Amino acid sequence: MKKEEEFVVTPWEVRGKVDYDKLLRHFGAKPLTADEIALLEKYAGEVHPLIRRGFFYAHRDFDAVMRWHGDGKPWALYTGRGPSGPVHIGHMVPWILLKWFSDKFNLEVYFQLTDDEKFFDDPEMKLEEATNWAYENALDVIALGFTPDKLHLIVDTKDIRPLYPIAVKAAKKLTWNTVKATFGFTDSTNIGLIFYPSLQIAVAFLPTELRREATPVLIPCAIDQDPYFRLARDIADTLGYPKPTTLYSKFIMALTGESKMSASNPDSAIYTQDDEKAVKRKIMNAFTGGKPTAEEQRKYGGDPDICPVYHYHMLFDPDDASVEKIRQDCRSGAMLCGECKLKLYDKITKFLKEHKEKREKARGNVDQYRISVKLK
Amino acid sequence: MKKEEEFVVTPWEVRGKVDYDKLLRHFGAKPLTADEIALLEKYAGEVHPLIRRGFFYAHRDFDAVMRWHGDGKPWALYTGRGPSGPVHIGHMVPWILLKWFSDKFNLEVYFQLTDDEKFFDDPEMKLEEATNWAYENALDVIALGFTPDKLHLIVDTKDIRPLYPIAVKAAKKLTWNTVKATFGFTDSTNIGLIFYPSLQIAVAFLPTELRREATPVLIPCAIDQDPYFRLARDIADTLGYPKPTTLYSKFIMALTGESKMSASNPDSAIYTQDDEKAVKRKIMNAFTGGKPTAEEQRKYGGDPDICPVYHYHMLFDPDDASVEKIRQDCRSGAMLCGECKLKLYDKITKFLKEHKEKREKARGNVDQYRISVKLK
Repeated sequence: MKKEEEFVVTPWEVRGKVDYDKLLRHFGAKPLTADEIALLEKYAGEVHPLIRRGFFYAHRDFDAVMRWHGDGKPWALYTGRGPSGPVHIGHMVPWILLKWFSDKFNLEVYFQLTDDEKFFDDPEMKLEEATNWAYENALDVIALGFTPDKLHLIVDTKDIRPLYPIAVKAAKKLTWNTVKATFGFTDSTNIGLIFYPSLQIAVAFLPTELRREATPVLIPCAIDQDPYFRLARDIADTLGYPKPTTLYSKFIMALTGESKMSASNPDSAIYTQDDEKAVKRKIMNAFTGGKPTAEEQRKYGGDPDICPVYHYHMLFDPDDASVEKIRQDCRSGAMLCGECKLKLYDKITKFLKEHKEKREKARGNVDQYRISVKLK
Repeated sequence: MKKEEEFVVTPWEVRGKVDYDKLLRHFGAKPLTADEIALLEKYAGEVHPLIRRGFFYAHRDFDAVMRWHGDGKPWALYTGRGPSGPVHIGHMVPWILLKWFSDKFNLEVYFQLTDDEKFFDDPEMKLEEATNWAYENALDVIALGFTPDKLHLIVDTKDIRPLYPIAVKAAKKLTWNTVKATFGFTDSTNIGLIFYPSLQIAVAFLPTELRREATPVLIPCAIDQDPYFRLARDIADTLGYPKPTTLYSKFIMALTGESKMSASNPDSAIYTQDDEKAVKRKIMNAFTGGKPTAEEQRKYGGDPDICPVYHYHMLFDPDDASVEKIRQDCRSGAMLCGECKLKLYDKITKFLKEHKEKREKARGNVDQYRISVKLK
């Protein structure tokens, strides 16, 4: 997006108040319609709250991959994470949906940890540091309950072997002109970052290579990743691979109320390793859609649509009635922000307590999930 | 080099009559002096004919790596080949020197087969084709007598694992601006070719990584490869690696008399797989420095300096007296081109007969030389 358009969204930056419809038109992806959601319900038996509630709101060819599934053909899931630091609960939202898809459709998941990209992108980052974060972040993915037969981790610098020949074929199809225009690269962009898109694209074609039959992927991720997969779709045909399909989410609101969380402000997000005290402080200090005084709030009610506290209820509470009640009690002024925050604190600490236990159980087991370890 | 300068030398193209001194000044490498050759003789006990005869004529820090050796510190050899087709005997010239260095100094050799680069560079080339050529070309390298403990092959698409983390560190130091200026890349250059320099550079640092101690490499190669190693030297310090050192040769004359052989004209070169009949035809049809008639030749003598037939005598006959006699008999007119060509034919067929036997013996053994197979 151009800076004149008030907000900026690239794979490395989200700035300003995001207009999600405008963004969709800009990228050229499609809004997720009731027909497509009905198609999902037909095959999955239900629809995940994150889709039902419109947090995943856009796609490329989601209907096509559903029909492909309907024909009994193989497909797989793919998403990833740039391991630049600790995982916050916002990062986990698309992974929760990933796990749901994997369970509902019995699908293998390809999960890329792009330590190379994060090293290329951050002048201060050491490669070993990014690789260590990849291992740390992998624990949060595994903790969702994945078994090694279903989850295939790709740590770029360690699992490059199966990826590279595919990336090489993708790279030959992408010129400087194309990546410059797509990602806003400049003359001083390093050649690692210039090559990197071919690696993110390569994973979309990896299941087809490994299975030796057309195996499209569905990629649940945030909308800012669309430029990669638009390019992947552009070149898939000529490389003889099925086009990847995508399901795009909005961004997770920062606790400070901004469009996306910022790594530079640790209080804008709840990290999976935060202790209960930190979680409480962050939630209780969060920006809300409430009124300046309790009196005004009782009288006029709050605005859940701009409220990160409500946003997190919506993301982490699977019970529709419970979320709807919070919404109504906010709007009516029946519930004040403090109470609403405590409710959220209870949900998040419950989620994190279980998550931390599973996460620590996964420690030391990361390598058995790595794709190239399995291929040996 | 600019086109206005009458000749063009890049890693992908040599055109026009090369002025080797001008080229050296352009690249900024140094001519190999008597002092440096004396240093080599001190440690090797002798000087290889290819150096003595000035075919290897330039360097970067060759004296430094000799002194490093003198201090009893470890070093290694590195060169490579772009596997775009069959190997001709001109390709083998630097490899012959490589083997000599390996034997004289008991050195390990890192040999890169850049199937990725050749695939990126040639719109018509399939990746599988380039990889197959890498395996075929590897046979010619192994046939020089290398054992798996001394020769480490790196087929880029297959042995990327140990290389990639080093390449990633190199890539972060190289911007689009730098590689554009160094290699003459354009807006339509593909991102594979843009990233590739970091892989050719990475091998120069690989011995240091594997040995976990400073292990500089000496790279014997043709002068057109200097841009890669100039960049490698520029970034070595900040990455904590010793600067690679180089020894540069002139180009092998084409049998047609041009500065460098052309893959598009198979009669311009003798391939290691040519049969005796083809070798004879190519040599007997070769351009020479002789006069148009036998009478004129007897009277005025020939010009060995522009003659590819003499050039090959110089490259493949280790006996100084024999080469000198050919030179004198040519200059004096005592020997006509036909006789000189038959002498060369005898030498080349003898070399090729032995080479082909050793080459076939190597078939099926390539993988045991590959670095990542050994590291498993």
